[in-house]
Amino acid sequence: MSVLDQVNSPADVKKLSNEALEELASDVRRAVLNKVSQVGGHVGPNLGVTELTIALHRVFHSPIDKFIWDVSHQTYPHKILTGRKEGFVTGHFHEITPYTSQEESEHDFFTVGHTSTSVANALGFAKARDLTHQSGNVIAILGDGSFSGGLALEALNNAGQFDGNLIIIMNDNDMSIAENHGGLYPHLASLRQSNGTAKNNIFKAFGLDYRYLESGNDIQALIALFEEVKDCDHPIVLHIHTVKGLGYEPALKNKENWHWHVPFDLETGVSLSPSSNKESYSSILMDYMDQKMQEGQPILAINAAIPAAYNLKDFAHKYPDHYWDAGIAEQFTITFGGAAALNGAKSFIFHNSTFVQRAFDQFVHDLAINHEPAIVFIKGDVISSSDQTHQGDFARGWLSNIPNLIYLAPTSKEELLNILDWAMTQDENPVVINIPEHGVEHRLSALTDFKKPAYQLEKQGQNVAVLGLGGMFSQAEKVVLELQKSGIEATLVNPIFVSSLDCDFLSALTTHHQVLATFEDGVLDGGFGQKVASFLGQSPIKVLNFGADKEFNEEVPVSELYQRYHLTPELAAKDILSALQN
Amino acid sequence: MSVLDQVNSPADVKKLSNEALEELASDVRRAVLNKVSQVGGHVGPNLGVTELTIALHRVFHSPIDKFIWDVSHQTYPHKILTGRKEGFVTGHFHEITPYTSQEESEHDFFTVGHTSTSVANALGFAKARDLTHQSGNVIAILGDGSFSGGLALEALNNAGQFDGNLIIIMNDNDMSIAENHGGLYPHLASLRQSNGTAKNNIFKAFGLDYRYLESGNDIQALIALFEEVKDCDHPIVLHIHTVKGLGYEPALKNKENWHWHVPFDLETGVSLSPSSNKESYSSILMDYMDQKMQEGQPILAINAAIPAAYNLKDFAHKYPDHYWDAGIAEQFTITFGGAAALNGAKSFIFHNSTFVQRAFDQFVHDLAINHEPAIVFIKGDVISSSDQTHQGDFARGWLSNIPNLIYLAPTSKEELLNILDWAMTQDENPVVINIPEHGVEHRLSALTDFKKPAYQLEKQGQNVAVLGLGGMFSQAEKVVLELQKSGIEATLVNPIFVSSLDCDFLSALTTHHQVLATFEDGVLDGGFGQKVASFLGQSPIKVLNFGADKEFNEEVPVSELYQRYHLTPELAAKDILSALQN
Repeated sequence: MSVLDQVNSPADVKKLSNEALEELASDVRRAVLNKVSQVGGHVGPNLGVTELTIALHRVFHSPIDKFIWDVSHQTYPHKILTGRKEGFVTGHFHEITPYTSQEESEHDFFTVGHTSTSVANALGFAKARDLTHQSGNVIAILGDGSFSGGLALEALNNAGQFDGNLIIIMNDNDMSIAENHGGLYPHLASLRQSNGTAKNNIFKAFGLDYRYLESGNDIQALIALFEEVKDCDHPIVLHIHTVKGLGYEPALKNKENWHWHVPFDLETGVSLSPSSNKESYSSILMDYMDQKMQEGQPILAINAAIPAAYNLKDFAHKYPDHYWDAGIAEQFTITFGGAAALNGAKSFIFHNSTFVQRAFDQFVHDLAINHEPAIVFIKGDVISSSDQTHQGDFARGWLSNIPNLIYLAPTSKEELLNILDWAMTQDENPVVINIPEHGVEHRLSALTDFKKPAYQLEKQGQNVAVLGLGGMFSQAEKVVLELQKSGIEATLVNPIFVSSLDCDFLSALTTHHQVLATFEDGVLDGGFGQKVASFLGQSPIKVLNFGADKEFNEEVPVSELYQRYHLTPELAAKDILSALQN
Repeated sequence: MSVLDQVNSPADVKKLSNEALEELASDVRRAVLNKVSQVGGHVGPNLGVTELTIALHRVFHSPIDKFIWDVSHQTYPHKILTGRKEGFVTGHFHEITPYTSQEESEHDFFTVGHTSTSVANALGFAKARDLTHQSGNVIAILGDGSFSGGLALEALNNAGQFDGNLIIIMNDNDMSIAENHGGLYPHLASLRQSNGTAKNNIFKAFGLDYRYLESGNDIQALIALFEEVKDCDHPIVLHIHTVKGLGYEPALKNKENWHWHVPFDLETGVSLSPSSNKESYSSILMDYMDQKMQEGQPILAINAAIPAAYNLKDFAHKYPDHYWDAGIAEQFTITFGGAAALNGAKSFIFHNSTFVQRAFDQFVHDLAINHEPAIVFIKGDVISSSDQTHQGDFARGWLSNIPNLIYLAPTSKEELLNILDWAMTQDENPVVINIPEHGVEHRLSALTDFKKPAYQLEKQGQNVAVLGLGGMFSQAEKVVLELQKSGIEATLVNPIFVSSLDCDFLSALTTHHQVLATFEDGVLDGGFGQKVASFLGQSPIKVLNFGADKEFNEEVPVSELYQRYHLTPELAAKDILSALQN
């Protein structure tokens, strides 16, 4: 019987001997590795906080004491110790979500997936605790990667004016060894090297009390530290040096690659799903940038700690002066990249839809008002089976409602390249490009000027017009084929333009069509189709908008979502035929 | 002839004797006061940076050297020295905008009005300068009030990894004397008190070089400092202590009240437009909160450095433990207030529409996904004559497209109170309340449960249905009256719900109406009307959406905008009648 077999709740952790705690750490690591090796997941972060998590549950009393995890991609050990270890046993992996979830356990308090929220959440909990005369410690666990995000820094500043119990663990796992995302990371390194005594301590500058612990994977040292600060009456930062990937050699050796990993062979660390050599939009973009660099263009490639999402590493190594990873600082990337574009650089800013939400004001107030000709790429604005905290299909609902900004949804490599060629030479507008997410397609593309909306007629038909935006174009093509089975030769349109309408084209459609259907790869609210419906509100043509409902979905299979939203060719065609007949 | 008479460009500043510079400062102050006393404006910030601005133009060569002003509400002296002094002469005030504007002068580089952008903008300019082989210094002028904003902190961190010329002026005018918005402000105070030598220097923690100047209104000292750092090859922070309001006694004595001021008598400092005692939605909210405090509710009133916008000062003084001014940190207010609500506090979060854009991700990822029952108030989501950097009428275009979040637009005091009573007792959803902006109205309000959309029928008619949302309801009433002149007895509806539709109500309207018109107080894109149009896309009823176009407007009179958007009763009725007849 392993030690973990005896642990079904935090109370059980308190019953173990000190020696058994060490064994428990091994058991927890084994459980983590069992899961991530078979279904993939966050490897290094979970291995690194194993001892820290055990010590937290040893000293504090969850859920009266509240652990608030940043991003929560490092909570596997916490889940294992709080009654959810069956989720790490083969056959049960998907019964437990990869992030914290208050629906799953009374030991979780937030559903999170974006970074830098833990201190603000913890401070809110602590303030409410005091106003409502509750008790208990509130403990934020912030990772060094989340430290650079504006929200984390705002919250640390605000914590400096709080006068109650608040424990902020800075889980520092040397991210700055692999990456350098600003001046704070050398500073963290100097604090580590000096055992917390280096000058100009940022946490103290924020007005916070501070302790440093070098041996952050030593359970007894952690317990001693936690015992010391438990029930303290003011905010205190515990800067704890942990080792990412500890306990699994491949993850220790290459921390960056093993932050998150696809399924792998546990013996060798070799990936079970070999990487594909298929053409990707990322590789198309990288080839394009390389070509433009050779032509002497002052490209500036910017991202916020997601180089892997666009495969930016080769570019970064080849052209270090032309590459800027801002760390987790989405707001900064937009204001910075926009300003650089205004002063003559060719800014290429790379984002994931779910994270770039953080920069909405910068799109409006900086990029758009100032006509800054930066080019912003948005990945993941798509109906997917992601968890709800990473659901990316809301982007049309805000990005398409900003003046001056040209938001484009190409459907093919050729269209993307035409857009890039045009965007590189114009200096009037920010251009946002939606990366389609259903594999690279090839298609003739005649349009070379994207200043004014110009829908592309792909097939002339009558009675029914089908508009397939960006990643939904090929789905729209299938709908047209499906309609053919009922004798309808529908018109097929590639609108390309997300943020403004080709009004002449739409008006012309009303003459020989009775039904117009729009398809977009995401939430309908605020997006493309609703604009079309509004524009045609006075026309007798019937307008059907296909896309996702405004709702959060937790890892729902895409096929189920397509059924639910009538996005399959069969269901969509049925709706269209029904509208045509009524 | 005054010294200012001889100054028509920065070159002229360089020709003056040192003594004349002192006189120039007096002349500049007089010009500033002439304007603000007659038309209102930012008083303290402009007076405080007079010497700093003169010294900048004495030492640096604008526009080759680039001054990038944060918020730009302190640029009157800069404007006066860069060929725009006529804008400070009676009769010409409105020829010069109150913020920087690249359309106005080659010495301005950005149109700004939101805080905390200067370092990111300057870093972008500096990086592009180096990539494109330009020359010149780039100088950000950041105020201490802007320092707490996440974007400023992200940018300081990123500046720490830059290796070229970048001068960051921290214009520190003791904001922390009046206010305490977090741990950084006592830290700035300790730096001031120690002549820049205090421990734990935050700027150095970010990896930045640092100089302190105590006498920030001493032209010669400023010139000496600027000469010293000019053309430096790395980022450097110049922490300069200036005196807000210097040169005008009333502004010196009460720095907070004189940050921005309505027109006033220059002799006495007495306001020319006495404050009104009319009932306001702010006073209604404050009375409500006071009452709930007396009933023992754990109210937590949160704002981001805008207490005056909601008249929160009395509440803050009476209930200091229940009040939290986060400083400029919009993101933090939402995550923090949402978490507090989740842990039992009654969070009331007060925002201006234009600034709260910064917290979009926190609305989605924190409030909405986590079902945090905070109450958020939004002011200024209205078609107004503001400058474009403060244009607030975009809020429906993003706030109404977030799941779980209930966005309500009351039309009267009674409705607002009903909403508050309901919002205080439910714990399932974040509730966002649009504050109507056309004066307090009174109206019977029957609805007391706002969980599900329930449009209110105000008047039953036929043929035409008019839906007037929130602040546009009374305008919709006028449209109905106007239609009566043509014999149309229109149906009048108060929808209240911004973010989701009362589908049954809308479907029922299609039976006895041929035209449905929606009115909303802001940009149509992504908002209310387009959702209605989409829902009714298959119905034969014609839908007209009235609201603003998606565009930025620079201080355009509201009457002109109403004409442009056909929001006057006459123009709207004409459009409706035309739709009815076609």
